[in-house]
Amino acid sequence: MASAQQAVVDPGGNESRNEILQAAAELFMELGYAATSIDAVAQRLGATKGRIYHHYRSKADLFFDVQIAAMNRLNEQVEPIARGAGDPLERLSAMALRHTQILLTELPMQKVAVQGLERHLLGASSGAKRLRSVVKMRDDYEQMFVEVIDDGVRAGLFVDQPAKLITKPFFGALNWATVWYSQRRLQSAEAVDDIAHALAAFALRGLLKDPNHEAARKTALFRDHLG
Amino acid sequence: MASAQQAVVDPGGNESRNEILQAAAELFMELGYAATSIDAVAQRLGATKGRIYHHYRSKADLFFDVQIAAMNRLNEQVEPIARGAGDPLERLSAMALRHTQILLTELPMQKVAVQGLERHLLGASSGAKRLRSVVKMRDDYEQMFVEVIDDGVRAGLFVDQPAKLITKPFFGALNWATVWYSQRRLQSAEAVDDIAHALAAFALRGLLKDPNHEAARKTALFRDHLG
Repeated sequence: MASAQQAVVDPGGNESRNEILQAAAELFMELGYAATSIDAVAQRLGATKGRIYHHYRSKADLFFDVQIAAMNRLNEQVEPIARGAGDPLERLSAMALRHTQILLTELPMQKVAVQGLERHLLGASSGAKRLRSVVKMRDDYEQMFVEVIDDGVRAGLFVDQPAKLITKPFFGALNWATVWYSQRRLQSAEAVDDIAHALAAFALRGLLKDPNHEAARKTALFRDHLG
Repeated sequence: MASAQQAVVDPGGNESRNEILQAAAELFMELGYAATSIDAVAQRLGATKGRIYHHYRSKADLFFDVQIAAMNRLNEQVEPIARGAGDPLERLSAMALRHTQILLTELPMQKVAVQGLERHLLGASSGAKRLRSVVKMRDDYEQMFVEVIDDGVRAGLFVDQPAKLITKPFFGALNWATVWYSQRRLQSAEAVDDIAHALAAFALRGLLKDPNHEAARKTALFRDHLG
């Protein structure tokens, strides 16, 4: 899990901050925004409130930083694949798989980011500008998928539907995991990865005109996991 | 919209109660559970608090009844299709389409039901038993789909994956609409129905071994909306 470790260490090596984000994400997920307090985050970490306040002035600050860290994490992993070599199908398969692996293995952070948990509770005044910036990150991330999907539609590989529309159920098939999936201590990394493959393959089939097309058959996702 | 009207009129003809549920669902969706009050529901209806308290003792009562009414609505529409005639593909297509049409046209109620909005905020004591009953309704509803999907797997039409697992992205493709979709005053019923068809067709393709198989081609969902 070397790459997962990198997720919680930002370029400045600020592990403390990332531990705080991780603990906050867990509490937001378990208790909801309203019931989570800086106190509870400190308790979860076995730290003082002062340690949290050293980094974050408020719970809202913490909430936004969780979302930003989670979106950065997805972006840094998925963008190179989107911008890299390969036909739309090959790239999109790899993007979907990586996206889903991150959701499943880093569930608390991603759940907060993907579902934009209870944004309305933040109040308009202080939150509005930062909320827009998080929404923009999410929109830009989605747009990256829309463009690859549009390439696949134009190439005649994907169904003739507006790319913006069919990106919605595509993400739905993957992101719904943040609603139903729960991490289990005894579940092996392989079992989790099988789920990620099944979800990504489902989402790709949803787009494909013909999953038995040669281009699909030679794609790693389908070649290894003919499902 | 004769059938949609039936949704808000229960067998006892208790329109008042259903108006309250509808208004409460809208507020839960817009403001979240914590920020919604019996007062706000009364205000939205232009009614007195007394009228609400006549039916509901607390906000939690109201919240559960929204979820139960929404699940009943899905069940009464989808169960006859599941138990009816037709091969698994034909039945599942019709089930997926009806499910999605209800989500899109009755968004506030369904959003609360599908996402189980902020359950953790209800507190364990009074809510636990009722929460279990709502979760059971949702589980039973999902199980109905699992069984039809399993039939399709056994018939060799759907991919060889555990039905319980592939039902998750199937619902994800449809239910994610409660996250991204917003009702617009100027959107025609046809435009909404096109979205429902696109989502249902996506979800079906996600399951199908071969969307160009004769059984798929003769299914209404694909015949009318090849795409």
